This record gives sequence, C-alpha cells and structure tokens, in this order.
Amino acid sequence: MPVFNDRQLAALNRAVISGRILPVLVLITAAIAVAGALFVELVSPNSFDSLGDALWWGAQTVTTIGYGDVVPATNGGRIVALFVMFVGAAAVSVVTAVITAVFISYQQRRMGPDAERHDELVSVLERIERRLEALESR
Amino acid sequence: MPVFNDRQLAALNRAVISGRILPVLVLITAAIAVAGALFVELVSPNSFDSLGDALWWGAQTVTTIGYGDVVPATNGGRIVALFVMFVGAAAVSVVTAVITAVFISYQQRRMGPDAERHDELVSVLERIERRLEALESR
Amino acid sequence: MPVFNDRQLAALNRAVISGRILPVLVLITAAIAVAGALFVELVSPNSFDSLGDALWWGAQTVTTIGYGDVVPATNGGRIVALFVMFVGAAAVSVVTAVITAVFISYQQRRMGPDAERHDELVSVLERIERRLEALESR
Amino acid sequence: MPVFNDRQLAALNRAVISGRILPVLVLITAAIAVAGALFVELVSPNSFDSLGDALWWGAQTVTTIGYGDVVPATNGGRIVALFVMFVGAAAVSVVTAVITAVFISYQQRRMGPDAERHDELVSVLERIERRLEALESR
Repeated sequence: MPVFNDRQLAALNRAVISGRILPVLVLITAAIAVAGALFVELVSPNSFDSLGDALWWGAQTVTTIGYGDVVPATNGGRIVALFVMFVGAAAVSVVTAVITAVFISYQQRRMGPDAERHDELVSVLERIERRLEALESR
Repeated sequence: MPVFNDRQLAALNRAVISGRILPVLVLITAAIAVAGALFVELVSPNSFDSLGDALWWGAQTVTTIGYGDVVPATNGGRIVALFVMFVGAAAVSVVTAVITAVFISYQQRRMGPDAERHDELVSVLERIERRLEALESR
Repeated sequence: MPVFNDRQLAALNRAVISGRILPVLVLITAAIAVAGALFVELVSPNSFDSLGDALWWGAQTVTTIGYGDVVPATNGGRIVALFVMFVGAAAVSVVTAVITAVFISYQQRRMGPDAERHDELVSVLERIERRLEALESR
Repeated sequence: MPVFNDRQLAALNRAVISGRILPVLVLITAAIAVAGALFVELVSPNSFDSLGDALWWGAQTVTTIGYGDVVPATNGGRIVALFVMFVGAAAVSVVTAVITAVFISYQQRRMGPDAERHDELVSVLERIERRLEALESR
C-alpha cells in the first residue's frame, strides 16, 4: 500500500524542505491546465471560441481565480473541468504547504538553543569526568 | 466541552500527520457540495436551469473558484449557498493544513541531530559510570 | 512598537494552538463582510439592487470565491470593496495558519521520543548518584 | 546556484518568523497588481474602459477573488495577465506560510518543556559535581 519506499520518501522530503520541488509543482500544474483546456475543447468543442479562450480558462482555473468569462458549456466539458478545478485547488494547497515547510524546517535546523543546551550538558559532563579521573589517579 | 477524548485526538492526529485523512476530507467536501447544490435547487428552483448546472455551481463553490456563470438567484437559495461557500473556504484551509502537517511532522521525526545528541550524552554518561564502577571495586 | 506585551502574546498563542481563536476569526470576518457590504451600498447606492445583493457580494468576497454576479460599480464603492477583499484573502490565510498550528503543536506536544529520551538520561544520572552515595558512605 | 548567502538567509528567516516581512509582501504584491494592470492596459487598450477598471481587475486578480466583471480581452493582455494571476496565487501561498511560521516558531521558542527538562538535567549534574567535590576533599 505505501506508494514510496523510505529512500524515496527521504529524497522527496529533501526536495520539499529545500523548496526545490516548487518549480516541478508549478510545471506539472501548468501542464495539467494546458492538457485539461485542450481536453475540454475536444469533448465540448463549442465551449470556447478559440484555443486562446481554452488556455485562458485553464489558467484562471488552476490559480483558483475563476473569472468565469469563459467556461465549459456542456456536461462533458464540465466533467473534464472538474479534474482541472480539483488540481488547481490541490496545487494551491500543496504549494502553500511546501513554502511553509521550507520556512519552518529552516527555522528548526538553525534554532540555536538545542545545540547550545547540548553543549552545556556535554561540558558539565566533561568536568565530572575530569574529576573522576583525578579521583582515580589518587 | 471537549468534543474528543484523548484517545480519539491521538487517532485523529495520526490520521492527519499520515495524510490518511485527506481522501476522507475530499469525500466529505464533495458530498456537501452535492447536497448543498440539491438543497439550493429545492429551496430556489429557478436558480439553476438543470441538475447539471446545480452540481456545476457546487463544484466551483467548494473549490473557491467561483466562475459565477450559474449562481443561486433568491435569498433562500443564497442562504443555503452561504453554508456551501463556508465549507469550501474551510476545506481548502484544512486540506492545506493537513498537507503542511504531513511535511513538517515527517521532517521532525527524521531530524537526526536530536537522536545523535542524545546518544552522545548517553555514551559520556556510560563512561562516567564505568569510572565509578572502577573506583568502587578498588 | 510591539503591539502586544509578553503575557498578551502568550494568551494569544494559547488561543491559536488550541484553535479557540477560530470562531472569533470567523465572526470578525463575517462582521467585516456585513459592514463592508453596507458601506459599499452607502458609498455607491446603485452598485447593488437590494440589501440581499449587498450581503451576497460580501459573502462571496470574504470567502475569496468571487462569483462576480453582483459587484460594486463606482470607484468609491470599489475602494471600500478593496478593504473587504484584502480582509477576505487575509482571513483565509490566517485561518489556514491557525489550523496548521493546531495540528503541528499538538503533534509536537505528544511526540513521545523527547520525553522518553529525557527520562532515560535522568535514570542514568540517578544510577550515577547512587554510586557516588555508596562511595561516600564507605 | 544559491540565491542568498547564509547571513542573508538568516536575516530573511528572522523577517519571516517575526512577521516583519508581511507588509513588504503586501506592498510588493500590490505594486505588481498596479503595474500589471497598467501593462495590460498598454498591451491591450480595449480590455478595460478606464484606469479604474484596470486597477479593479488587478485587485481582484492578486487576491484570487476573480469576479470577472472586467477581464483582459486580447491574447496579448491575457499573457501579461497570466503573470499577475501567478503572482496573486503565489502571494496568498507565501503570506499563509509566513503567518504559519510566525505561529509555530513562537510556539517552539516558548515550549517550556525543553527548557525545564534541560534545567532538570543540569541540576542533577550539579548535585553529582558537588558530591565529587566532597569526595575529592576527603
């Protein structure tokens, strides 16, 4: 049932928290917008007056802006459109989540306190060790 | 006043950070869109020309795209619509939050440093213990 | 320059991570939508045909759905509208951020490992203390 | 390939987690909306009836509300519009991510447990040190 193995998940995670996945997400979303617009045009040829209108509809859909000046007019076209609309809403969510993960994981990695506290503990322990050494050598 | 007890909250939390809750959220949102569209049609029968128009309105509402080519036309229909609109905005928020939680909790669980630091402390402490043991056995 | 003092920030933080702030945010946003709609009607009386239209515009604006079947028609009305539009976009962002904070802070508070690791360190240290006690009492 | 060096990243991170970057983001987004609207008007002069219409389109685009009462009408205008639409969707994502980072990093910095646990460890270690000191002075 798991789609990815551990190594793939770790690689995916690195691509997320570094933000390197963002251009990939934007490209995939744009490709789905273009493909969806062409597919609506194919299924419902009277929906849009031109290829420009079809692509314009795709762009306003995946960005969830939805001017609505051009829309699919038949049930067939609308069923294809549903998929593009879902991808648009999902893409906005995923992109927001990736940017948040970039900010927070950066912050977590550089949050000094943990490292400082650890160093404090280690230095106290080293003092204790030196004391024990002194005791032993008596 | 708390809606869930501790065990239910923990189960909900696991469903969130694993992302397993996502298909559930999508299905609930889709169900509300369909039910809301049918209910607007019931309350305000002249709002939409067909069942297809009603469902098309539901889909563009819960995704917050809002083309506006078909909209409820009466106050009654609009009051029902308000609920679907609110659910749409909330669904986008919750889905974004879940995806963010998946990314960040994955990252937190695999952030090596904490485990490494802990092991370092434990190994220093073990050295100290061995020293004390040696002192005792003198 | 800081708007809140430390105690107020801590209280605000508790309201955020518990999610208790959500109904407050929804109510404030709804109040701004209603007030904004009435204000657009006041500034630009021909924008909407009825009070229902004005409130319908407010609702579709703060949820960022924007059907566009009713919109302010004058520059004055649009300037008032800008504020409601900004509040709508901001409200969606803040609500998403609050829900994310609820999920992640819950996860952080229950992430067992830290507590377990701490208990392990404390138990090792207690063993060391008992050893020292034994050495002392010799 | 990295766009920022470490010091710049740290400064950017502080501006993010303090929320101080928010007014900057809002201003940049507003500036792009205005510039984009003027540029659409330049490329496609028949798109909008007035400067007010152009700016109104820019505002409803960057907030992703998209009423659609005024839209660019030519392919040239739409290509310019694509950029403003992308910036709008991205701005909503980045603003949401920044607010989330403000909430979560505040929570992480004040999460008492870690500091308390650390203090507990240090106090146990100090007791051990005093014991060793006593042993030494015998």
